[in-house]
Amino acid sequence: MQESFDIVSSSGSYAVRIGRGLLANVVDAHRDAIYLVDERLAHLLPEAAARRVLIEANESRKSLEAMPEVILKLRELGANRSTHIVSIGGGVLQDIATFAASVYMRGLSWTYMPTTLLGMADSCIGGKSSINVLGYKNLVGNFYPPVEVVIDIDFIRSLDAEQVIGGLNEAVKICYARGAQSFADYLAEGPAWPLPPETAQRLLTRSLITKKWFIEIDEFDRKERLLLNYGHTFGHALEAATQFGVSHGVAVGLGMLVAIDFAKRGARLTQTGASHAEALGRHVSAMTDIVVESGVRWPKVDLTAVLQKFDNDKKHNTEFYRVVVPVRDGELELVSIARNDDTRAALRASYEAVFSQLGIDTAVASNVA
Amino acid sequence: MQESFDIVSSSGSYAVRIGRGLLANVVDAHRDAIYLVDERLAHLLPEAAARRVLIEANESRKSLEAMPEVILKLRELGANRSTHIVSIGGGVLQDIATFAASVYMRGLSWTYMPTTLLGMADSCIGGKSSINVLGYKNLVGNFYPPVEVVIDIDFIRSLDAEQVIGGLNEAVKICYARGAQSFADYLAEGPAWPLPPETAQRLLTRSLITKKWFIEIDEFDRKERLLLNYGHTFGHALEAATQFGVSHGVAVGLGMLVAIDFAKRGARLTQTGASHAEALGRHVSAMTDIVVESGVRWPKVDLTAVLQKFDNDKKHNTEFYRVVVPVRDGELELVSIARNDDTRAALRASYEAVFSQLGIDTAVASNVA
Repeated sequence: MQESFDIVSSSGSYAVRIGRGLLANVVDAHRDAIYLVDERLAHLLPEAAARRVLIEANESRKSLEAMPEVILKLRELGANRSTHIVSIGGGVLQDIATFAASVYMRGLSWTYMPTTLLGMADSCIGGKSSINVLGYKNLVGNFYPPVEVVIDIDFIRSLDAEQVIGGLNEAVKICYARGAQSFADYLAEGPAWPLPPETAQRLLTRSLITKKWFIEIDEFDRKERLLLNYGHTFGHALEAATQFGVSHGVAVGLGMLVAIDFAKRGARLTQTGASHAEALGRHVSAMTDIVVESGVRWPKVDLTAVLQKFDNDKKHNTEFYRVVVPVRDGELELVSIARNDDTRAALRASYEAVFSQLGIDTAVASNVA
Repeated sequence: MQESFDIVSSSGSYAVRIGRGLLANVVDAHRDAIYLVDERLAHLLPEAAARRVLIEANESRKSLEAMPEVILKLRELGANRSTHIVSIGGGVLQDIATFAASVYMRGLSWTYMPTTLLGMADSCIGGKSSINVLGYKNLVGNFYPPVEVVIDIDFIRSLDAEQVIGGLNEAVKICYARGAQSFADYLAEGPAWPLPPETAQRLLTRSLITKKWFIEIDEFDRKERLLLNYGHTFGHALEAATQFGVSHGVAVGLGMLVAIDFAKRGARLTQTGASHAEALGRHVSAMTDIVVESGVRWPKVDLTAVLQKFDNDKKHNTEFYRVVVPVRDGELELVSIARNDDTRAALRASYEAVFSQLGIDTAVASNVA
């Protein structure tokens, strides 16, 4: 069975299809396309996809400095205004393809096939790219959705527990951000590891249909869509302070836990708000435990470095920290909190509480602070 | 007196203002902005415009490779999501600012002040950027209009005959492309060298209001707007073959002349069509003579190289050359002409006829071919 629906955007609407065995189908439909593919997935690509740019998917390739080489390869393969691009890979491939397709001869049409659960559950729709510049992470980017997003569930087979649960963390974040009923419906689908294809298809459909609501009412990230940053400001700080020793999806899970603790500490949660938030907290903690049981090791965490990275987040302004926290009745809110020592003490305490609950070693930090 | 009107685009409408002494006015309104300025104009900038990125305006700076440095400078000056950019300069500054503003933190608002007549008469509206990549001219680009275009007529004082007439060539091209009446109205304004400020203001208003018609019905360059390439395919070949020894606006004038000759040769012109096209030809020839009288020297032109560059133009497809030519009753048309030896002989003959009329030496070429 295949699911499909459309996303409406200012540059026209685009289709999302979710099902199994869709890679062969896409290649059949786009024999003349140029394939921009994660080099680790090249062996899965049918021979008919002859024109290929293989990309080493890492942060340094996802940079403005590396972009001329990608553009040059498209040119050498004969790309012209009517060339279609098919991009196959995770977030790095999506970022590179969004950017390259948007600027090549002022814009080529493209198809995106996400291959990670993070991509499938969340980032494949919305049309955003994030590109590093000379060491500044995600300093530039743009909005340029593909004409079609095709999610082939079969790619999930190759993913490990950490990758699957990272993706599920983004999915539950989206559903929680939409409200209490949406969160309950999500849990009822039975997110778990291992993730059977049928469950994956239902969860992904639910997650993307929910995200569709956010991006259609707020395409350019000005209001409602900002709630989807839940867990991200707290999580990014942890990713950055550990040199990405904690993977993105897992860090987002931890970020949600820190946000819940921080909301409680600041007395921002009503009683029903707390009960919803705690249900989310229990779910995310359980999922995080599975990651640890699968053999993933936590890096040592320098708490002072985490707080420094948190402090530098470009989403804050000069007077206030800007974070998404749970408030009442299962709702989220983007709040502004004074940048002062009290706030920093509370932030530190919240990170500490979550790290200690999960057995993350912060020994380095306590010496420094 | 100030003229002003709006341009409607898919990303919102933006204002165009034309008048004298507007630089001080812009700086007053945007003290906190970051100024992206042609370094040769830095001395004209009031002190209040304190945050500055000075750009050496040349083709190599207008490249994807050079973009990280511009972005880094914006970052070092503290640019954030709410920073406004003011760009002051010619086409190179506009290209760099369009691109940089569009991608920095996924898009900053910006104001553009064109300082060349080419920019004022034509390219300042439409929102396009053209960026070089590793030696490939204008291989990438995008659409990202400023929130306001402010044309300060006083910048014209610093321009020489070649620069002014280059700009007027683009203006007459736009008005001719709109039809016979629009062309007659343009000539009635009295385009001339030197160009008095009042005449400049009227001509620029006419040219931009006419261009507004093209870009509002065809924002993304798919149909009507393509007629504005008149003179460009022929002209670009000449620019490229002389390593830009012929300046853009002058080359566009020559390109229009070649296109007229080529249309006659291919019997594409009706009798009234020919009479309109010849009126344009006489005007452009007279303007070109003024450039020569001002002391500008033609480079030697290798005709074979010109034809090779023409052949490589990315606007053609594999079967047909795609050029804009005059047809009937003062109209232009984008036509497809078979890529064969007959066509190439006619192209060569048309270039030769125009070069010989203007006293351009093609001695190099005749030896080679």
